[in-house]
Amino acid sequence: MDNNKPALYTSLSPALLNLYDVSTSIVVIIDVLRATSTIATALYNGAKCIIPVDSVAECIRIGKQIDGITAGERDGKVAEGLVHGNSPFEYPRSFIENKTLVLTTTNGTKLLQMALDRHARGIITGSFTNLSAVCDYLVAQRQNVILGCAAWKDKVNLEDTLFAGAVISRIRAHFSINCDASHMAETLYEKGRQDLFAFMKNNNASHYHRLNGFGLEKDIRYCLTADGADILPIYDGGKLVVYQTSRESL
Amino acid sequence: MDNNKPALYTSLSPALLNLYDVSTSIVVIIDVLRATSTIATALYNGAKCIIPVDSVAECIRIGKQIDGITAGERDGKVAEGLVHGNSPFEYPRSFIENKTLVLTTTNGTKLLQMALDRHARGIITGSFTNLSAVCDYLVAQRQNVILGCAAWKDKVNLEDTLFAGAVISRIRAHFSINCDASHMAETLYEKGRQDLFAFMKNNNASHYHRLNGFGLEKDIRYCLTADGADILPIYDGGKLVVYQTSRESL
Repeated sequence: MDNNKPALYTSLSPALLNLYDVSTSIVVIIDVLRATSTIATALYNGAKCIIPVDSVAECIRIGKQIDGITAGERDGKVAEGLVHGNSPFEYPRSFIENKTLVLTTTNGTKLLQMALDRHARGIITGSFTNLSAVCDYLVAQRQNVILGCAAWKDKVNLEDTLFAGAVISRIRAHFSINCDASHMAETLYEKGRQDLFAFMKNNNASHYHRLNGFGLEKDIRYCLTADGADILPIYDGGKLVVYQTSRESL
Repeated sequence: MDNNKPALYTSLSPALLNLYDVSTSIVVIIDVLRATSTIATALYNGAKCIIPVDSVAECIRIGKQIDGITAGERDGKVAEGLVHGNSPFEYPRSFIENKTLVLTTTNGTKLLQMALDRHARGIITGSFTNLSAVCDYLVAQRQNVILGCAAWKDKVNLEDTLFAGAVISRIRAHFSINCDASHMAETLYEKGRQDLFAFMKNNNASHYHRLNGFGLEKDIRYCLTADGADILPIYDGGKLVVYQTSRESL
């Protein structure tokens, strides 16, 4: 019976992505702290589109070419040569509306490029800030899904795993899931869901400490809160744009 | 203060091992279902030593050369050309005492070879059957540790992760642990420790289903039980032998 359902897998690190059949799947790029939270927020606040690039040089080049906002981080800080960083709070409507953001990050944009190189059937980005939009889309598409955690320099991280678990917790009935990583992610999420911030802190999540050390507790709390920017970024022709869901017209 | 403690990391898949500094660490090879459980059991029951090899052909060649017992599995079943498999119950004292076992498995022996190639400072094997011996050794050595999960064809699995969590749960005070995978493993273990068999079943662990489908529930239960064969297999000069702990002479 389950065989009629599409398959769902969780790749806990970009170094594991090649174990899954990307070309027949929608890949969800997950980089909770903070790339995919910031992508959802900027689009929610009216950005025209976001161009993800994998190097700072490319970011600067394209930014000049199209008069876009160049932004990005390396190792959790604003990358040298770029003006804007990777905090969702840098992109309020008053600043980003109708503008194009050219973005490069340590892990998220790299994973997106990998999914592209492997001819993913579709690419969207996910974070707690747009949890519902991601889940609604995946259920509606009825396609195989790979939840792709961006991790930290290929090392598995807690926050991306928790988001994978949150998605699975909501949509598991619609998928066939024969994947230990998915079940582990869901179990961790169920354990932490009452207070994800405290769960990150108590589990000594390494990126929690990295960002908290930079005074970014507010960012972390926002990035762990569901549906603060509940639109769906979908990759289309080199850009992330808002997917026009039918529910918007209801 | 923590900086004076050795570091502990968990590699959830062989595909992630290269992220860690193997050459300065003791690597614990973890292949709970069933290679490292069987290794501990055979040595506990008096096997002279175990020669891990990474191919069936090599297994047959060396077996003939030294008149050893050739054993191994591929995809959870006895490998073609070998007489014995990967079940701990195949190696009672009456059969294995004073004999040499030449063993090849899908995942465990491959990971051991990787640790060798990367010049691990030391290599031991771990499983619930020898949990206490592993923990005592790691605490006594005061060296950096990598808990290396053999996984299933590079895909993260639940049982090896749970064993990593069990080790961490016991020895965490002696190590500096800045590793999300380790904290995730420990949290999963704490959640499941009351009944690991039920936890595996309820989490739909893929290898649980694979082996249970072969009628191997007894194997699974044994492999999830602590200290049934509580010796320490240590790799030395091409062989796994019993480490002579000082506690034996107490």
